[in-house]
Amino acid sequence: MNIKMVMRIVAYILVLEIGLMIPACLISAVDGEWVSVHAFLVSFVIIGIVAGIILLLTRKAEKGHFYSREGLVTTGLTWIFMSALGCLPFVISGEIPHYIDALFEMVSGFTTTGSSILTDVEAMSRGMLWWRSFSHWVGGMGILVFLMAIVTLGGKNQGFTMHIMRAESPGPASGKIVPKMKQTAKITYLIYMGLTLLDIIFLVAGGMPLFDACTCAFGTAGTGGFGIKADSMASYSPYLQNVTTVFMLLFSVNFSIYFLILTGRIKDAFCDQEFKLFWATVFAAIALITVNVRPLYDTLATALRHAAFTVGTIISTTGYATTDFNLWPSFSKTIILFLMLVGACAGSTGGGIKQVRVLILFKSLRRNIHKFLHPSEVCKIGYNGRAMDESIISNINAYLIAYVMIIVASVLIVSLDGFSFETNFSAVMATFNNIGPGLDAVGPTSNFFAYSDLSKIVLTMDMLAGRLEIMPILILFSASTWKKAR
Amino acid sequence: MNIKMVMRIVAYILVLEIGLMIPACLISAVDGEWVSVHAFLVSFVIIGIVAGIILLLTRKAEKGHFYSREGLVTTGLTWIFMSALGCLPFVISGEIPHYIDALFEMVSGFTTTGSSILTDVEAMSRGMLWWRSFSHWVGGMGILVFLMAIVTLGGKNQGFTMHIMRAESPGPASGKIVPKMKQTAKITYLIYMGLTLLDIIFLVAGGMPLFDACTCAFGTAGTGGFGIKADSMASYSPYLQNVTTVFMLLFSVNFSIYFLILTGRIKDAFCDQEFKLFWATVFAAIALITVNVRPLYDTLATALRHAAFTVGTIISTTGYATTDFNLWPSFSKTIILFLMLVGACAGSTGGGIKQVRVLILFKSLRRNIHKFLHPSEVCKIGYNGRAMDESIISNINAYLIAYVMIIVASVLIVSLDGFSFETNFSAVMATFNNIGPGLDAVGPTSNFFAYSDLSKIVLTMDMLAGRLEIMPILILFSASTWKKAR
Repeated sequence: MNIKMVMRIVAYILVLEIGLMIPACLISAVDGEWVSVHAFLVSFVIIGIVAGIILLLTRKAEKGHFYSREGLVTTGLTWIFMSALGCLPFVISGEIPHYIDALFEMVSGFTTTGSSILTDVEAMSRGMLWWRSFSHWVGGMGILVFLMAIVTLGGKNQGFTMHIMRAESPGPASGKIVPKMKQTAKITYLIYMGLTLLDIIFLVAGGMPLFDACTCAFGTAGTGGFGIKADSMASYSPYLQNVTTVFMLLFSVNFSIYFLILTGRIKDAFCDQEFKLFWATVFAAIALITVNVRPLYDTLATALRHAAFTVGTIISTTGYATTDFNLWPSFSKTIILFLMLVGACAGSTGGGIKQVRVLILFKSLRRNIHKFLHPSEVCKIGYNGRAMDESIISNINAYLIAYVMIIVASVLIVSLDGFSFETNFSAVMATFNNIGPGLDAVGPTSNFFAYSDLSKIVLTMDMLAGRLEIMPILILFSASTWKKAR
Repeated sequence: MNIKMVMRIVAYILVLEIGLMIPACLISAVDGEWVSVHAFLVSFVIIGIVAGIILLLTRKAEKGHFYSREGLVTTGLTWIFMSALGCLPFVISGEIPHYIDALFEMVSGFTTTGSSILTDVEAMSRGMLWWRSFSHWVGGMGILVFLMAIVTLGGKNQGFTMHIMRAESPGPASGKIVPKMKQTAKITYLIYMGLTLLDIIFLVAGGMPLFDACTCAFGTAGTGGFGIKADSMASYSPYLQNVTTVFMLLFSVNFSIYFLILTGRIKDAFCDQEFKLFWATVFAAIALITVNVRPLYDTLATALRHAAFTVGTIISTTGYATTDFNLWPSFSKTIILFLMLVGACAGSTGGGIKQVRVLILFKSLRRNIHKFLHPSEVCKIGYNGRAMDESIISNINAYLIAYVMIIVASVLIVSLDGFSFETNFSAVMATFNNIGPGLDAVGPTSNFFAYSDLSKIVLTMDMLAGRLEIMPILILFSASTWKKAR
């Protein structure tokens, strides 16, 4: 384990984090919120000192010996450090005085979950709200990917960038858009910025104030879901809600599809099996829910708008709300719960198991039935016209096993607090799949404040494990990661 | 597909079913319940005619060409025919007038689920109660295994018996106790009968009437759970409850363990990894629940007795109840829900995913983490000192995928009835894992009567899929099963 190089990257990220906090600090200054400004400045000093100490201790790090294991550990540790220190402004300013709560809120931000422990979000200062929402944008596409896009750390070591991007990007097999990983990171971020800007423009055009539009777009782009109003998106106009629906869905699509479209390979884009499954799921869910909730609303259009928004917010794992779907009939609630499970496409900013994994799991089941019937035949699983590597299938199976086990363990611990099974199960699903609100006592009109510290820590770990797709977190607890240290 | 031979076996089973109904008919005659006697006799005639027609149409069946596919289809069809006709006495006697309800009850019996649609079980005649409970005993060890034990159908075709036993016996790889499958079937059934008899003796010794003792032992042996009292086991003495706890756990153990013990290989028996995992789970769950529910009961002994009984009834997937665990704190309820998932050992009469599958899933996850860290190493999964065949692991993965998908689809359809998520989810879990009672509206003091016909059919299919471990039912719906028919 090349722990020195790993920690060096962690330190670079911490320096970057200070940079990313500056806009929030400036907003506080403009608003004259000196308590917030002071909190940010003290945080800068603390983060700077931690980064400095790490950089000092790891001067002699060697750039070689950086493999998949190092990539995973870097990702896991980066996200933990970044969250543990990123929440300092909340604590120091006293806006979220309890550290565990602040950490929960910060991790919820970076992992683009959007679950909150705040009981009165409108009481927060604008600088803090900005930082809280901006963390969604930073976490959505991945902060390490951002670092890779702007600097060249590993010299000519291509594996360096690749191992880190693989570990941080969602999906079973992170695709290179172009042969060079650094270029891929750059293109991805340019598309991400472009789409975010477009969202802001559409929102401002609909009469939303610029500050609101920016925070709303950050939450949409990262598929995070922190709102700045107590009723999330309910009080905004139908136009603004519909714009957000469209953009939530756009950010749930694999970004390589946009690259294909931008470079004129439109047929390739629309033939992508995950892309097709995603839109089929979206439209089927919207249709079923619209019919099911129709009696609750005055017009079909209203029912359709709320159904589309809710499907968008859930499948993209964003977590905004225009209506309390807790009050919907159980058929719709069940669809919502299963959309939470599946989630968005790989290579997007959304969470969940991912459409492609579900597709491959289904294909591998069909293959096994076929093998049962024709034991002597050799059959490969095809995906987008190519045979899929067996190791990817095996990793997806391992992912599913780990997924189920983490849910079981988490629900068990969280149930110690005595809430209903629906509350606990949906709380774990909502955090682990990076959605935000669950059902019942953690539904869209409630929050996670009532849980004990132990439960909050478990749910915080679930958010991290969910965003980083389990392995980078699991591996930190594996003894063999730390054996044979170099 | 050798459909003629498949249907011939189905017909033999139907003839056998008439024989198995005779004791119940005699009890009705002794009680002077002539409506019941009449219902049984009419059923005999109908079943006899169906069997006769099948035998007539399949005279030219050939014994060769009988492979794994035929074994699976035989099992699937046998269980469907046996249930569809076995429920006739309930309908004809008018004791369960609605056919879908009667089918639900019968499938619940054969699959040893124990979920009931009866609102007043004590109003049933003794003959019907006997048949209902006896179906647990028949389904527990498998009716095809029973047939294999008493007749030699395939001539010298060893594969014949093997393919059928594999398809009907629970567990990832049905072990041969002795080289000859027919002998294995016989030994298994002798142990099964011996343990059942022992249970009856212990119960009668504790003052339970013989009829009650027999039906109770059938439910325990098959890990079924149909009671003959409205309060299940609650009104019986602590001694009788404890006896049942012990026997429920004994019937959850792989029967090959008993064969090892009987033949003096005690060390092999106690070193079995599944055996060890099972008892560790049992004792851990009892301890945790006892501590958690202690404040609800007067003495520690009472809390322990109810905790042990409930763990026994759930992990063995029996479904008897001494107390309403619906009223327990959510931590205990969550443990119960997860024990439902895991279930008993392979090669026992219990249901669920099975201990050995969970063990292997866990090992395969550990292997994948290891492979992530050391990509070049080849590592096998060890089980009981031997390397496990990769095809078994692949089948377990497929099982888990199918398991999750069936739960998702079932919960979705059942939720159309509008009950709570806890009710629907636990109803599917309780039927699919062959347990019996769920939580909330289908908890131990309620029943499945309130569900719609559509939901009852879905839950009936779930019970069959659960008992036969998915594949024999799934394969009936696969087009390639019926292609290239011979």
